[in-house]
Amino acid sequence: MRMSSLFLRTLRDDPADAEVTSHKLMVRAGLIRRVASGIYSWLPLGNRALRNVAQIVREEMDDAGAQEVTLPIAQPLDLWKQSGRDDAYGQMMFRVKDRKDNWYAMAPTAEEVVTTLVAGEYSSYRDLPVNLYQINWKYRDELRPRFGLLRAREFLMKDAYSFDADLAGLQASYDLMFHAYSQVFSRCGLTFRAVKAQSGEIGGDTSQEFMAVAAIGEDAFVWCEQCDYAANTEAATRRPTPEQVVPDQPPREVVHTPAMPGIDAVADHLGTTPDLLMKSIAFDVDGELVLVLVPGDREVNEYAVAGICAPAKVRLYTDADFDGHPEIPKGYIGPDFAGAARTLADSSLRAPHAWVTGANEADHHARNMVLGRDFTPTAWNEIVQVEAGDKCSSCGSPLRIDRGIEVGHVFQLGDKYSRALGAVYTDDAGAEHPMVMGCYGIGVSRILSAVIEEHHDDGGICWPAAIAPYQVHLVVIPGRGDNSAEVSAAAEQLYSDLRAREIDVLFDDRDVSPGVKFADADLLGMPVQVTIGAKGLARGVVERKIRATGDRDELALDVALDALTGH
Amino acid sequence: MRMSSLFLRTLRDDPADAEVTSHKLMVRAGLIRRVASGIYSWLPLGNRALRNVAQIVREEMDDAGAQEVTLPIAQPLDLWKQSGRDDAYGQMMFRVKDRKDNWYAMAPTAEEVVTTLVAGEYSSYRDLPVNLYQINWKYRDELRPRFGLLRAREFLMKDAYSFDADLAGLQASYDLMFHAYSQVFSRCGLTFRAVKAQSGEIGGDTSQEFMAVAAIGEDAFVWCEQCDYAANTEAATRRPTPEQVVPDQPPREVVHTPAMPGIDAVADHLGTTPDLLMKSIAFDVDGELVLVLVPGDREVNEYAVAGICAPAKVRLYTDADFDGHPEIPKGYIGPDFAGAARTLADSSLRAPHAWVTGANEADHHARNMVLGRDFTPTAWNEIVQVEAGDKCSSCGSPLRIDRGIEVGHVFQLGDKYSRALGAVYTDDAGAEHPMVMGCYGIGVSRILSAVIEEHHDDGGICWPAAIAPYQVHLVVIPGRGDNSAEVSAAAEQLYSDLRAREIDVLFDDRDVSPGVKFADADLLGMPVQVTIGAKGLARGVVERKIRATGDRDELALDVALDALTGH
Repeated sequence: MRMSSLFLRTLRDDPADAEVTSHKLMVRAGLIRRVASGIYSWLPLGNRALRNVAQIVREEMDDAGAQEVTLPIAQPLDLWKQSGRDDAYGQMMFRVKDRKDNWYAMAPTAEEVVTTLVAGEYSSYRDLPVNLYQINWKYRDELRPRFGLLRAREFLMKDAYSFDADLAGLQASYDLMFHAYSQVFSRCGLTFRAVKAQSGEIGGDTSQEFMAVAAIGEDAFVWCEQCDYAANTEAATRRPTPEQVVPDQPPREVVHTPAMPGIDAVADHLGTTPDLLMKSIAFDVDGELVLVLVPGDREVNEYAVAGICAPAKVRLYTDADFDGHPEIPKGYIGPDFAGAARTLADSSLRAPHAWVTGANEADHHARNMVLGRDFTPTAWNEIVQVEAGDKCSSCGSPLRIDRGIEVGHVFQLGDKYSRALGAVYTDDAGAEHPMVMGCYGIGVSRILSAVIEEHHDDGGICWPAAIAPYQVHLVVIPGRGDNSAEVSAAAEQLYSDLRAREIDVLFDDRDVSPGVKFADADLLGMPVQVTIGAKGLARGVVERKIRATGDRDELALDVALDALTGH
Repeated sequence: MRMSSLFLRTLRDDPADAEVTSHKLMVRAGLIRRVASGIYSWLPLGNRALRNVAQIVREEMDDAGAQEVTLPIAQPLDLWKQSGRDDAYGQMMFRVKDRKDNWYAMAPTAEEVVTTLVAGEYSSYRDLPVNLYQINWKYRDELRPRFGLLRAREFLMKDAYSFDADLAGLQASYDLMFHAYSQVFSRCGLTFRAVKAQSGEIGGDTSQEFMAVAAIGEDAFVWCEQCDYAANTEAATRRPTPEQVVPDQPPREVVHTPAMPGIDAVADHLGTTPDLLMKSIAFDVDGELVLVLVPGDREVNEYAVAGICAPAKVRLYTDADFDGHPEIPKGYIGPDFAGAARTLADSSLRAPHAWVTGANEADHHARNMVLGRDFTPTAWNEIVQVEAGDKCSSCGSPLRIDRGIEVGHVFQLGDKYSRALGAVYTDDAGAEHPMVMGCYGIGVSRILSAVIEEHHDDGGICWPAAIAPYQVHLVVIPGRGDNSAEVSAAAEQLYSDLRAREIDVLFDDRDVSPGVKFADADLLGMPVQVTIGAKGLARGVVERKIRATGDRDELALDVALDALTGH
């Protein structure tokens, strides 16, 4: 494609309505233009990148045995009433009425339509499993559309729906999708992890979100760079500390620590550090006092406590609780407090040293508290909030905590929709059962935002080759010298030769300054830049620059074609 | 693809709601399923065919220099108010309101959005021309959705929009699109012609409709099989008859023809045939009596009369006109009637013989009326309604009259939208002008209907190879004999080999009867059917059948792969 013809005007300045880098760069590089809040036109470069992502998704879905269909965007609202999701979506869904007063939902997803479709065609266990997917525009009437494609109201989504006879089949379908998703995001050049998730309006049981690491992500999560471990901050745990022998320690000793409001003050006063103190945190568990023991430098993960105690109800002690129990010395409870029904200890308290703890008496702490000698927890658990650098529970490498963009989501739906919409099958004994469903979404347009968040620098976008609108950005700098025609001719020849080898080339043949050309080449971000200028041509070379790394080298003109086409 | 896994259930019976063959076959062959009136889900086979058509369209648009974009389906209604099309579309357009009470049109086309887009990016004559296209879902709230995809409410359309500096540029852009359209419809296997058309709500001047010949088409049109001539029945003309010498004839003679209500009766009475009679039809043209002369066996084309007389107003004489002018002998006017201001004659009246005409006197006709001797028309024109078999005005071959499905439409829009929405450019002298636009639509989903209307037989669809969901339909008939496992293995091998050569194969590996397999293969309509059975395999052959022609031959198994892949 010649830039002299390409429908593109790059912008030097960030658009006023863009808050995040990917949105700014997508507008500046002429990939999208705003039409209304959260609604965009896709210009040629953006459209090409979008189609590249869609094609990767398609290939991986096909490889996983899913079959492509296209389901309507305008869906009878009655189906959504049958499933109960008309109410569940509420204002998030666009609804439209036809001339005969029939209502339609503008699809945010398509469980209802696809379930009805399968119910109409399939009825026997021999028909199953089947997995249908589509890549089509979806609609959500977001309260606050923002961040460009990240929270848009019209967006391209791949949605797949699996139908199985039983839970084992669902698990197999789910695993296939999980693998396909990993392939998709890897090919798109994203750093991502799958995280167990709460499901939203779609309802159902097991689900995992694929999070692309990005500072602007909406949710923080914990992940390991060395393995595929990842979890929401609430669910994350670190590697348990094994049992260890505590070397001989001096006997327990009570010290006076008056009016010391926090761990740091106590540590200072006693000449030690917070990580050698132990906190005994009071919880009300179905009316009983339960102490949660963690090191002084760590926070309790209340979700973990709730999980351990379930189905009992758990809450932190409040001031009112302490006021009603003057026998409990707030701020000075120790792990050996006799009034506790149970003590739950984080496994890190197995560290081979003695602890400073509360002395179960106001204004006093105990030191040289030794596990097994001075206190013995009722149970050991992983119960602190994970922090960056903690050891991965899977592989022991240091964990990271980052924000993430949700680029995909896989759900085990079960039979919610098949029951509501009559998708049943007959087993080999003639008995009827609802089909067991899974659903699987990928934010195709959103992937582009995530990719740009990960792959950019101050100059602009650095497209991964797999989704770049063009592979080579060819810049000609004819100059004003005698040989400018010769330079142009050489560039035209290379452009023509590359196209003949089916390389997608963006050719900057415009009559603008070299500065403008180089700035645009960096902004647009094709993986390889090739510059033909008078000086180089005089020496028989062109310059190649790898956009992502900035690495430059020179290629002899007579081998450039082979070098650029990987021969 | 294995049919044992394919999401497909074919139907033996026509669906109750389908009136036309293409709709019936698309449902029976499992290409589409109805979701609501005029709204369909596309199942795997239909989706593949649709994508094949879309890809052909894309390639031809790209070749013509158009650039692909994607414009939103949800478009701000304010833009439609600015162009005046909100009112013009009226109930034909779906409108949807968001949670903040902003209204959106669900795009029936995209002139407003694309004009605004180009206005925002381009401003100089140096920017032009540009042609942007998209392939996206469109919406029309049809009063009576019917015929499946032919009059659907949700349909896939390719819409392109060209922007030029002047009319000459527009003509060049239009010509490129015209050529591309011809390529598209040819590649899709359609018999089609471009017909000059009245434009609809889009407004504008010159436009042409591409009509695919089909008995179920909504409009009749005249076309030539030997050249590309075609026209609406109103605009169609036949080859003019040249001036000829009329051999000597007996003198004019008046005969009594009392109470003869029509041409046939007069001809009978006089022992001649209607084609040797001449009708003199009375028209009121701005208050004057104008006679239109045509042979007795032909009808006047009133649109042609109106065109010839424009800007004067033209209407046929009514009974009231005759009642007010008793001097005009209704039913007995001759071409030499003295009261006529003018006579317009169809050129076929130059035929080298004498005519029977009215004698300008009630109950009397004249015979032996000779051109140049007894009457001389004021002007010669092509003025009869064209009939099948008339000679093509371009090449002289016999014309056909058929009904057609509109599969494409090319418009020269002019500056209607660019003025309304501010798409202006500055010329090299610094003066501002509105851009000159064209718009170009192809009914991508509708093409499938037109193709099936043209390419089917009693057994089902006969897909042209270019858009067939699969190229080869491989049927295995393992039989019940000892070598059934061997037959299956040979089929599996061929399936695997064909796929390795990137041939799209549909493999009927189902455990159903040969009859069901053959019926489905014919219904689904892949271009080539290959059957592997026990008897053939014993002789080392497979059977090949060309679906469209029914031609069958046998291929030796060891050369079948090469034969099927064109080697």
